[in-house]
Amino acid sequence: MNNPILTAIDERRTTNLFDPSYALDDAQISELVRLATKAPTSFNLQNWRFIAVRSPERKAELRAVAWDQVKITDSAVTFIVVGQMADHRTLADRLAPLVAAGIMPAPMVGGWEGAAASLYDDQPWRQRDEAVRSAIFGATTLIYAAQAMGLGSAPMIGFDPEAVARHFELAETEIPVLLLSVGRPTSENWPQKPRRPLVQVLDFA
Amino acid sequence: MNNPILTAIDERRTTNLFDPSYALDDAQISELVRLATKAPTSFNLQNWRFIAVRSPERKAELRAVAWDQVKITDSAVTFIVVGQMADHRTLADRLAPLVAAGIMPAPMVGGWEGAAASLYDDQPWRQRDEAVRSAIFGATTLIYAAQAMGLGSAPMIGFDPEAVARHFELAETEIPVLLLSVGRPTSENWPQKPRRPLVQVLDFA
Repeated sequence: MNNPILTAIDERRTTNLFDPSYALDDAQISELVRLATKAPTSFNLQNWRFIAVRSPERKAELRAVAWDQVKITDSAVTFIVVGQMADHRTLADRLAPLVAAGIMPAPMVGGWEGAAASLYDDQPWRQRDEAVRSAIFGATTLIYAAQAMGLGSAPMIGFDPEAVARHFELAETEIPVLLLSVGRPTSENWPQKPRRPLVQVLDFA
Repeated sequence: MNNPILTAIDERRTTNLFDPSYALDDAQISELVRLATKAPTSFNLQNWRFIAVRSPERKAELRAVAWDQVKITDSAVTFIVVGQMADHRTLADRLAPLVAAGIMPAPMVGGWEGAAASLYDDQPWRQRDEAVRSAIFGATTLIYAAQAMGLGSAPMIGFDPEAVARHFELAETEIPVLLLSVGRPTSENWPQKPRRPLVQVLDFA
């Protein structure tokens, strides 16, 4: 396989051990998040937020509510990847730049709003699913962007969501979907974990 | 930016219009899914399944329960990306190859099982969140793999989940998280949709 993107996908592995001396500056962190937001979201909702925890004090605060995981303080930054409960009323704002750019005909906006309303209104589980979907579209993209920059990453679900929401002032409608540490891997990390045989996970129809 | 991976992430856009004459063979579809399963999952759970709908009959059947979206029949294949409710009892099977390969010490398996049990047992919303997370980790990876192969893709949530589950015989514990069409884009597709300013979605701590 000599396509660099396919090779990167094929060889990626999760980093568990980070070099604590390695830091990222805010411009590098911003570039990671800018690329993450190029991920797709339903209706272009972009119902996400990224909190880049990179100061020693806030890293320690996050680690205390995240199973005391060392990678939170050893990595350069841990992103709290936040998903927002999907709400069709946010769409007009998110679609306005498409209309202004001449990409989307203005009369189409109402149709998308109606479709989103039919999916999400009074359906809290669908609103939540969409928060998780968007957050993970963004987080996965950030993982590959970090890899392309020579960095390692560690997605984590071992944390107290209520405590994270309280310490980092999430809104009622926001869900901390994932923690994602990024930094320089040490040489002692595990190799890629074996995957299930394809026959167990792929069916044709 | 002269890194091909960062450029790909930066320039990706969703395909809405597909060339209906373009087909993928089962080997190409398998390679897309093999790469998708290189995505991370919590505890290496791999609680996902990919149903590749590529026969004319089953495409039509899927389209009928998915808002009659033309891209389902025009694209080469539409994946039903299925997430499975997280269950710590599946972990021993998923971790056995790591132990056999000498990556993971055998006594560590019980610790991971206990951690997974503490998260998921009797917490259906956490089981469901994990199904969505894993499915979207895999789907996002498949999107970038398809792009690297010169293909376009369209993630979709406009479908009747109960009908999809019934027509494609999903288990009670399986959720159709996303439909993902893949094929050759026509030249009439929209450019990339503008994104929200970074200041609206990134905070530092």
